Amino acid sequence: MKPFHKGKLYRVSLTPFRILVGYYFLTVGIVALLLSLPAARQEGADWSAMDAIFVAASSVSVTGLTTVSIPDTFTVTGIFILIFALQVGGIGIMTISTFFWIMLGKKIGLKQRQLIKADQNQLNLSGLVQMLKQILYLIILIEAAGALVLGTYYLNYFSSPQEAFLQGLFASVSATTNAGFDITGESLKPFAHDYFVQFITMILIILGAIGFPVWIEIKKFLFHKNTNEQFRFSLFTKITTATYFILLFVGTIVIIALEFNDFFAGKSWHESLFYALFQSTTMRSAGLLTMDINEFSVPTILFLSALMFIGASPSSVGGGIRTTTFALSILFLFHYAKGHRTIKIFNREIHPEDIIKSLVVLMLAVVMYSLSVLLLAITEDASLIAIIFETASAFGTCGASMGITPTLSTFGKWLLILLMFIGRVGILSFLFLMAKNEKAPDFHYPKERVIIG
Amino acid sequence: MKPFHKGKLYRVSLTPFRILVGYYFLTVGIVALLLSLPAARQEGADWSAMDAIFVAASSVSVTGLTTVSIPDTFTVTGIFILIFALQVGGIGIMTISTFFWIMLGKKIGLKQRQLIKADQNQLNLSGLVQMLKQILYLIILIEAAGALVLGTYYLNYFSSPQEAFLQGLFASVSATTNAGFDITGESLKPFAHDYFVQFITMILIILGAIGFPVWIEIKKFLFHKNTNEQFRFSLFTKITTATYFILLFVGTIVIIALEFNDFFAGKSWHESLFYALFQSTTMRSAGLLTMDINEFSVPTILFLSALMFIGASPSSVGGGIRTTTFALSILFLFHYAKGHRTIKIFNREIHPEDIIKSLVVLMLAVVMYSLSVLLLAITEDASLIAIIFETASAFGTCGASMGITPTLSTFGKWLLILLMFIGRVGILSFLFLMAKNEKAPDFHYPKERVIIG
Ligand SMILES: [K+]
Ligand SMILES: [K+]
Repeated sequence: MKPFHKGKLYRVSLTPFRILVGYYFLTVGIVALLLSLPAARQEGADWSAMDAIFVAASSVSVTGLTTVSIPDTFTVTGIFILIFALQVGGIGIMTISTFFWIMLGKKIGLKQRQLIKADQNQLNLSGLVQMLKQILYLIILIEAAGALVLGTYYLNYFSSPQEAFLQGLFASVSATTNAGFDITGESLKPFAHDYFVQFITMILIILGAIGFPVWIEIKKFLFHKNTNEQFRFSLFTKITTATYFILLFVGTIVIIALEFNDFFAGKSWHESLFYALFQSTTMRSAGLLTMDINEFSVPTILFLSALMFIGASPSSVGGGIRTTTFALSILFLFHYAKGHRTIKIFNREIHPEDIIKSLVVLMLAVVMYSLSVLLLAITEDASLIAIIFETASAFGTCGASMGITPTLSTFGKWLLILLMFIGRVGILSFLFLMAKNEKAPDFHYPKERVIIG
Repeated sequence: MKPFHKGKLYRVSLTPFRILVGYYFLTVGIVALLLSLPAARQEGADWSAMDAIFVAASSVSVTGLTTVSIPDTFTVTGIFILIFALQVGGIGIMTISTFFWIMLGKKIGLKQRQLIKADQNQLNLSGLVQMLKQILYLIILIEAAGALVLGTYYLNYFSSPQEAFLQGLFASVSATTNAGFDITGESLKPFAHDYFVQFITMILIILGAIGFPVWIEIKKFLFHKNTNEQFRFSLFTKITTATYFILLFVGTIVIIALEFNDFFAGKSWHESLFYALFQSTTMRSAGLLTMDINEFSVPTILFLSALMFIGASPSSVGGGIRTTTFALSILFLFHYAKGHRTIKIFNREIHPEDIIKSLVVLMLAVVMYSLSVLLLAITEDASLIAIIFETASAFGTCGASMGITPTLSTFGKWLLILLMFIGRVGILSFLFLMAKNEKAPDFHYPKERVIIG
């Protein structure tokens, strides 16, 4: 087996940001052009260059905010172009960033061969590509299965099988990639009382948002042969998965508590539970809704904005500051208060560099987010709470909307496009992109790495 | 000269938080009791235990938010009790935290005697106490001078000399301690076109908010005798002073820009300038106002909230996250983006421990602030923008109000009391107070220290 040379690895760790960003802009450009083809749009539908760029950026970043109504604007051809955009945006970016994550892991693994014995069974590049391919096939399989189940079930809802299966396919892809677009014209509101559709959708959302590296480890866990060696999930997988489900659970409880005497007044326990559970799940990054957010009270909308701001797992189809950033920041607060300068969790110590990264990402996100809200408050004729929500939705690439996106000024739309981009590629990638002389962080300690941002 | 023993110093650096907090609660209790004396209040004025605690907490934290109208509630005796509260709150806490700052500086100075030659001329405790006393006298002198100038000038405004000089004394103390209370019943609005009063008030505000350690260094700079040795201002003084004035300047410009076509429409250039300059100055921590904040537009109010959130210099009469926290956080972002893990500024390198501190303070403040806004949005029947502003005002111990404080729920009032306390003693003190086994940070590097939070 040929070992990696240091120079080669250094080059790889130097350019991921550029590759990611280049891929992003290229696909946005292509999608904007494709959506602008006459065949993509219905006759007489309003369409401008701004709309093309916004919808393309929103679909490649799998956000789901849109300046036009999807079912009223696009033909079936247009809808398939959108599906294509969601795949290259959601899964493509997820694959690229996962690739870099593994490369980074290997880099340490090579340097510390004696200390970290984990990843050694796939040290060559072709094995890695092979594995990513398998995972990609798995996602396509999940999307197809979702489309089949939802399409079949939708035969009850839609008049023709074509319509039912087109709806099923789009819904499955939109959920799995956490895109949050819909071709019903009213998101998942028609299924507000159909718990089956909601359940399937939530499963698909979680599979997409939980993060690609987690899948890889689960696959390894299920298929690892050497039974003498105990399989150990990485610290990253433990932290991100725990955080993901804690947020989902806490989100549900808080939504129920906040709306108990308001939106949920007079509703049955299962209605309330599903409204809260679905909206909590969707705020991680999906953006599909079974209700109108405007029906919630101001505190609930603020809370949902915070959930979207946090976002999904790193190297997933989601955005925001990411679960690990949130978890490490909060954990560090508690450890710091006790006089420690590091975090000990799951019998491991967090790399100091990752703690700094989390803090930087959080701070940068807070500054960027606050500034965006301030700017939109200046330029837009919308309520403050709607601006707070829509801005968080863009940065978290969630796409849940209070309805102000189509009426934003040109400046407002460009700002959301920028936020969706930053939310999707990750705030650290953005930071290193802005700075000319980017540098790979120096590794002094043989500690375990966690992805941030 | 007797050197400090390590054990002694350790004990000093272990307990400052407790001393500070103990002093705070003791004075709040005493002031609440004194204000509840019948002699302190006018006959028939509304007064409750809640009011007593709120006004006492607000005065000891020199915030200036109040649940009752000061001139309609208190007698001249009551007003003198308030003046006493502002002194023990504003100047007392400033003195205590300055004392600890110097002790911390000495600790390093002793360990690194060869490296840091600065503080050596006052290494004994009695010299230190002597110096603090001198500064205390200087503040009293400034307050007296301010009272004399304003009192004399107020003879034009008030019918009796007693009234004029009482107003002058209270205004001078309220400005110098950055308390922001008023006994005019409408803050500085009666002087909205009196640039002399505003100018004097701004001078007094800045003298209070610039930070005690800065005064000490200026004093040293002016009176140092050994002309062979070049006097050097500390990094702390340079950073905090630069940040203070940059914020003041940028604040003025942004307020003018945001309100150019709104509040300032039809106003002369000097009216606009003084409105903007005074409100920018007062947002650092003072809270006196020459206008009704409700007349500003939402973006301006958001911007002012951010200014209050940042607050004043450490070891000053102000609150908030403090200028140094803000400066180090922003500077670190830029340095981090360029691949550095430290900050180089004014030909010095910032101690890594202080960078971490800044990030922790900022993060904790953001979490605490957002949570407070969310809680108040749940419990209070007020507009979101008013809640955002009033919460920032409490945490920044600014005291500028959009008028909702008197109508807050009991929970809302207690929350503001807590925020005023945290804002005043500093978020780090609060953090270490919450954590049982507080520890002094370990110093590994011979670098220069900066106060955070
Ligand atoms: K989305
Ligand atoms: K104040």
